[in-house]
Amino acid sequence: MSANAPQSHVPSLPQQLLAEFAGTATLLCAVIGSGIMAERLSGGNNGVALVANTLATVFALYVLIETLGPISGAHFNPLVTLVMWSKGNPAFVKSARVAILFIAFQLLGAVTGAWTAHLMFDLPILQFSVHWRGGFDAAGTFTGWGQWVAEAVATGGLIFVILKSPPGKVSALVACYIGAAYWFTASTSFANPAAVMGRMMSDSFAGIAPASALGFVLAQCVGAVVGTTVAGWLQPTEK
Amino acid sequence: MSANAPQSHVPSLPQQLLAEFAGTATLLCAVIGSGIMAERLSGGNNGVALVANTLATVFALYVLIETLGPISGAHFNPLVTLVMWSKGNPAFVKSARVAILFIAFQLLGAVTGAWTAHLMFDLPILQFSVHWRGGFDAAGTFTGWGQWVAEAVATGGLIFVILKSPPGKVSALVACYIGAAYWFTASTSFANPAAVMGRMMSDSFAGIAPASALGFVLAQCVGAVVGTTVAGWLQPTEK
Amino acid sequence: MSANAPQSHVPSLPQQLLAEFAGTATLLCAVIGSGIMAERLSGGNNGVALVANTLATVFALYVLIETLGPISGAHFNPLVTLVMWSKGNPAFVKSARVAILFIAFQLLGAVTGAWTAHLMFDLPILQFSVHWRGGFDAAGTFTGWGQWVAEAVATGGLIFVILKSPPGKVSALVACYIGAAYWFTASTSFANPAAVMGRMMSDSFAGIAPASALGFVLAQCVGAVVGTTVAGWLQPTEK
Amino acid sequence: MSANAPQSHVPSLPQQLLAEFAGTATLLCAVIGSGIMAERLSGGNNGVALVANTLATVFALYVLIETLGPISGAHFNPLVTLVMWSKGNPAFVKSARVAILFIAFQLLGAVTGAWTAHLMFDLPILQFSVHWRGGFDAAGTFTGWGQWVAEAVATGGLIFVILKSPPGKVSALVACYIGAAYWFTASTSFANPAAVMGRMMSDSFAGIAPASALGFVLAQCVGAVVGTTVAGWLQPTEK
Repeated sequence: MSANAPQSHVPSLPQQLLAEFAGTATLLCAVIGSGIMAERLSGGNNGVALVANTLATVFALYVLIETLGPISGAHFNPLVTLVMWSKGNPAFVKSARVAILFIAFQLLGAVTGAWTAHLMFDLPILQFSVHWRGGFDAAGTFTGWGQWVAEAVATGGLIFVILKSPPGKVSALVACYIGAAYWFTASTSFANPAAVMGRMMSDSFAGIAPASALGFVLAQCVGAVVGTTVAGWLQPTEK
Repeated sequence: MSANAPQSHVPSLPQQLLAEFAGTATLLCAVIGSGIMAERLSGGNNGVALVANTLATVFALYVLIETLGPISGAHFNPLVTLVMWSKGNPAFVKSARVAILFIAFQLLGAVTGAWTAHLMFDLPILQFSVHWRGGFDAAGTFTGWGQWVAEAVATGGLIFVILKSPPGKVSALVACYIGAAYWFTASTSFANPAAVMGRMMSDSFAGIAPASALGFVLAQCVGAVVGTTVAGWLQPTEK
Repeated sequence: MSANAPQSHVPSLPQQLLAEFAGTATLLCAVIGSGIMAERLSGGNNGVALVANTLATVFALYVLIETLGPISGAHFNPLVTLVMWSKGNPAFVKSARVAILFIAFQLLGAVTGAWTAHLMFDLPILQFSVHWRGGFDAAGTFTGWGQWVAEAVATGGLIFVILKSPPGKVSALVACYIGAAYWFTASTSFANPAAVMGRMMSDSFAGIAPASALGFVLAQCVGAVVGTTVAGWLQPTEK
Repeated sequence: MSANAPQSHVPSLPQQLLAEFAGTATLLCAVIGSGIMAERLSGGNNGVALVANTLATVFALYVLIETLGPISGAHFNPLVTLVMWSKGNPAFVKSARVAILFIAFQLLGAVTGAWTAHLMFDLPILQFSVHWRGGFDAAGTFTGWGQWVAEAVATGGLIFVILKSPPGKVSALVACYIGAAYWFTASTSFANPAAVMGRMMSDSFAGIAPASALGFVLAQCVGAVVGTTVAGWLQPTEK
């Protein structure tokens, strides 16, 4: 590669994978840890608990995207990586192999983040959520369409915001978007398969039962396709 | 139009109408959805519920104006469109016909946003608010002057903030203004006939009874005229 | 005055006085109105009420300083006007006469803001607070040193922040400073004789009994002198 | 030193020490004062109290780093000073002697800040916390590994954020990081030996028992080393 100045400091692939791992771990640690703290302190008022969970998540997202964005693009989310790869974004996701590695480190990071939260709060490290959020129940009845619609809306909006952010504002916009979507979607807006993975392994305020997980991920995939499509419709064409 | 560089990517009218539709829908979905979530979680403490509703609305407004502003101006509000048209703002509202189309798509968006929130929260899609916010009651007595004054103040302030924002700051200023006005106006600051339309169709925390709607819209029109006038008084004259 | 470009649009004195009047009125309306709304909604939890009051005040301050700063400097506070005048700030306060006019319109605005809040919330327009915040009580005993120290600290900090803000950041810094000082000073940080004037005339959450007002203003004056002095110590000297 | 323009206004060492003293004092006054106010107002709901404590701390940090950063670098934290010195940061910490002076004034400031808060809230000036946060108890049993892990995580994250902040954003990023870490770490994220010192001397919401203090500081030192190391791994190498 030529030695022209602005590109003379290029992060290596191991640095990018470390950034995706550490960023996703910190994000899930922030989501789950603040959920545990909020539930303990809020005396049963879940409105107060979700306000606290929202503030912690918004602040953490903003900081993580600002500090790690220059290294890996700060995806922390398999669907964001796939959308970037599908768009032929050469800055960070140069090939399908890189995309797969990004996703693997995101999923590892999500589990590590959940476990770190449990370690800090003196909880059993390995645990699974029993927080039912829709799907087929034991009797084979399907419930929770609202939750699935919510995850599709949440993820569609997230992808749209990422694709339409003005330069330099994606950190603030993603953080604020998730802060709003925690409240206006019925699912509190996971919008991220890695978040589903980490939250599945935490029987706490922010958790999701494994039996509900697949539905969330499917709905998120649908949402990502819709969000990418609508963003395309709004792309101004050259005259 | 000439092919000079900064204007080579001009959004088309269908793109602008889609932006106004989708933006107003998301705004109303955020206002109503977060109101439903907040009321469910807050254990009867409406202070906590309105704090949550405020955060979600502020975050959503900031994100929507940043992402859709370059396409349609991000009005999401018939009175903003009319003020822009009256000012001869050629960037987005080129004619009375465009203004009428903008308003139509805003109103459609508002209803769609309310219905999307109901869909996510497993509520009946079609419903009407019974939240009385002033007007003539069944006995023909008028009540609620305070609410009307509040809507005039809220809308006047909103128009003033839009007209006097320094370049590049209108997204943050509108979001923060509404966040303040949710609390300091007695009506929680609808300040937008499209918001009245959407909230009228939701029997939830953020709703307004249809019988109170016309009064709100009239008060908003008065406020818009006052806000435009005061902003004009403060326009520095050339020396 | 010469016709050089950046100064070709200079606000007139009547425009500046209107800006100080309207800005102080809106600030007091936001402080008192959100206090009334917060107290009504928060079910007796004053922590929730003060969180809401804080958010509304922070948002309002940021918006008012951004939109009115270019016209009058956005003082909204007699002590800020006096400090600017003492510093020989020629941009807005050209003479003692202008300073006196600024202060008169700030005080008028503060009362107007309180009355507007009462009008919106269907309360008696003219009222006086009975919220005791220190001073000589009926038996002639002095209480409330902590409140006085708090007002001196609050005002000293405010003046320091205004004098030491990097260019373009005074709006965000003043808003955030007051947001913090609402909580860390025992008096909830009035830090402004015009705010004392407006709050004195409102028997609500944010009010102050007239008998406590003079003490607050004296403490604020001491704080303003201290803040100006400390800011001077930290002024880098030319080498 | 040469008289080239950008360095013609260089703060003197006494100005830097005053900035570290006053900044650390204000930070601790904000943390402890808002903790006292929040506990008094929140009617036993510690979730509400920590939301208020978080907002006050985030706002105060942002304001202090913006206003004092140009003078001393706005460390307010012995570990930040040591990391900057170890990095050979010549802007503010020119020698080991300067580092030691910075730390001394930070510790003095922390105690002064705690005492100022007590003075404002009419509490005994000199007091010590009995808030147990882990360590060896009276029976010689060690408890509180989670708290120690939390302090290491909190401090590592803080140092990482400071070292990886894009230019001009360290104030917002440090403030937001601490706002998140208040909730996602089990210890509410002191992350600062000077904060331990000040909080030790306040028997209030934000306090820490002296017997728990040494463990917190040791964990913070470990975190600072880890944070510095991980930031180094992510430093792009020149090609």
